[in-house]
Amino acid sequence: MNVPVVTLLSDFGTADGFAAVMKGVILEIAPEVHLVDASHDIAAGDVEAAAWALSQYWSRYPPGTVHLAVVDPGVGSARRAIAVAADQRHVVAPDNGLVTRVVRAAAAWRCVELRDPAYMLPQPSSTFHGRDIFAPAAAHLARGLALERLGPPVAEPCLLSIDPPARRGAAIEGRVVHVDRFGNLITDIPGAWVDASWTFEAAGRDLGPLRRSYSEVGVGEAAVVIGSAGTVEIAARDASASKKFGVARGDPVKARR
Amino acid sequence: MNVPVVTLLSDFGTADGFAAVMKGVILEIAPEVHLVDASHDIAAGDVEAAAWALSQYWSRYPPGTVHLAVVDPGVGSARRAIAVAADQRHVVAPDNGLVTRVVRAAAAWRCVELRDPAYMLPQPSSTFHGRDIFAPAAAHLARGLALERLGPPVAEPCLLSIDPPARRGAAIEGRVVHVDRFGNLITDIPGAWVDASWTFEAAGRDLGPLRRSYSEVGVGEAAVVIGSAGTVEIAARDASASKKFGVARGDPVKARR
Amino acid sequence: MNVPVVTLLSDFGTADGFAAVMKGVILEIAPEVHLVDASHDIAAGDVEAAAWALSQYWSRYPPGTVHLAVVDPGVGSARRAIAVAADQRHVVAPDNGLVTRVVRAAAAWRCVELRDPAYMLPQPSSTFHGRDIFAPAAAHLARGLALERLGPPVAEPCLLSIDPPARRGAAIEGRVVHVDRFGNLITDIPGAWVDASWTFEAAGRDLGPLRRSYSEVGVGEAAVVIGSAGTVEIAARDASASKKFGVARGDPVKARR
Repeated sequence: MNVPVVTLLSDFGTADGFAAVMKGVILEIAPEVHLVDASHDIAAGDVEAAAWALSQYWSRYPPGTVHLAVVDPGVGSARRAIAVAADQRHVVAPDNGLVTRVVRAAAAWRCVELRDPAYMLPQPSSTFHGRDIFAPAAAHLARGLALERLGPPVAEPCLLSIDPPARRGAAIEGRVVHVDRFGNLITDIPGAWVDASWTFEAAGRDLGPLRRSYSEVGVGEAAVVIGSAGTVEIAARDASASKKFGVARGDPVKARR
Repeated sequence: MNVPVVTLLSDFGTADGFAAVMKGVILEIAPEVHLVDASHDIAAGDVEAAAWALSQYWSRYPPGTVHLAVVDPGVGSARRAIAVAADQRHVVAPDNGLVTRVVRAAAAWRCVELRDPAYMLPQPSSTFHGRDIFAPAAAHLARGLALERLGPPVAEPCLLSIDPPARRGAAIEGRVVHVDRFGNLITDIPGAWVDASWTFEAAGRDLGPLRRSYSEVGVGEAAVVIGSAGTVEIAARDASASKKFGVARGDPVKARR
Repeated sequence: MNVPVVTLLSDFGTADGFAAVMKGVILEIAPEVHLVDASHDIAAGDVEAAAWALSQYWSRYPPGTVHLAVVDPGVGSARRAIAVAADQRHVVAPDNGLVTRVVRAAAAWRCVELRDPAYMLPQPSSTFHGRDIFAPAAAHLARGLALERLGPPVAEPCLLSIDPPARRGAAIEGRVVHVDRFGNLITDIPGAWVDASWTFEAAGRDLGPLRRSYSEVGVGEAAVVIGSAGTVEIAARDASASKKFGVARGDPVKARR
């Protein structure tokens, strides 16, 4: 029999003990879970980056996994706290767009607001819902609590507005949706849309045709490949494409053949 | 039946393998434990910050949890190695003040010196007691070893001198005890001492009255709130209060009504 | 009965979700394993630093442990993916020298190339073998799969060329093999070669004799000690020896008596 998994994502860092106390709260309620740190190094308040990171792993965990995700610059304001059931996994998060890419990718989902105080710590603080509201909810879900017990349904969770890439015949216009630790520029252009007959451009610079791997080009040169997310990715071999080409998240990327 | 939890706190970072080898040593002795990283990102040698971080989570873990905490600039000197039993949890640490806030908060505690070589690795190094002395002790405690087996009692572990906040009628003088990752200034002024009729001041700057949450003020403005530690906390909305107001750990904070 | 342990080492950081998805892939295949993060903070592409970090912990984990180690600047090129069985533990890594210090230290080892697609994710990407090839192999090994099932034997895995230290009578010439987070300079000079009658020199600077511990010298002064790796280590008390003495990885260190 498998133990339920709870993953944790936050912008808390670890040095203040805030991530550690969330884990303690979970283990007090659900001592049998397997805790897995996804990351506590999301840039402070960067909900968009957190939503992207979450999209990389949420569906790759075993059914029954609960993903706790707390990047919560609006803590204490009127923003709701929510839990989403999506394709046999759960996500517990502030209702600020963090679940956007889960909801968009899921075959089926439903969402509730975290409202029942029976599943919170007593007297929740106004500054740390990760510990007082989100962690307890995640622990109870991991123990098998039905989603609907946490609170009333939310028909429309807050979603980030994400413009889809545009395709017009022999031209595609997409954008950079994430810059990773290596400076690779991950775009929203589906890998299935392009092949070696397409060439790419960003920040007014010709980046050459689609390559099979980073190693096809010389050191420092642009290598446009199908990345691990299944979309077009712009790398610079053994260098940061973001710095080298002066391209950041949100910037447009063009393809033509 | 629940597995015992061992948490780890250090200033080792992770890239050198020092945190990893402590975990291996624990698992060799106690393969059944659930390892939880609290943090390895404490600033090098910052015992005061480690003591504060530990205070945020130690009592929130299940009874039986062992907290390993190694920020040990005096390794190899005459400083003792200790283990503390406090309110059904254990803390294993160098005797340099790291356990101060545990001992101050516990309803009951006792302390021993780690002296019995049967519970150390053979031939401990002079530079890495985390691996050779602290990790084995934590593992043996997690397996159920009685505290007193590790060595002789310590009546007075080394404690950091922490001045309590002072209250004189309509005036309170406290200080900043921790600056968190977001730049929030966490003070030692108990939340129970103040309400909306009090106003606050630090570094000669008026910070306004007590607020209910960060979101009551505009971006960049000071928000004095009751923080998640139950004490007064000075934030700057979506900014670092520490940088914005030029206030650091140890600086005084005044309240009056 | 003990659960198998899988440790993870990478240069991925955590904020992009790449480390998290490797853990999800492992848990989908082997839900019963105990996941342990060794580090995701290796400097990008620094195979030499990863090999050193791995050397600090691989043999200290329980027999049966699988060490996943992915620092893989050549991903997508012709470099092989390998798994090594060494002294009752396994290491899964790119064939770029990362296993050098394991192979050199092991009493016995054997190596295979990861070739059987039955133990990879379907349609592996060209940019993320950590998720698609290495993590699945580690999970299958943790479940008890025989090493040889993964692919054909590799007689000579790629090894970093590591010059041994030289000893000529009353003179030793070694070098710095690692600089740790504290700026300590870890050399390849075996502790067994020296005693208090030896004095040390690096970057043209006299570092004094071998000490018993850091605490024998004043703040900022050089303390040459036998470090936790069992080799000579150059520290500066409460300071970075690397910065203070201008010494980096690869630089020579001399001893004489």
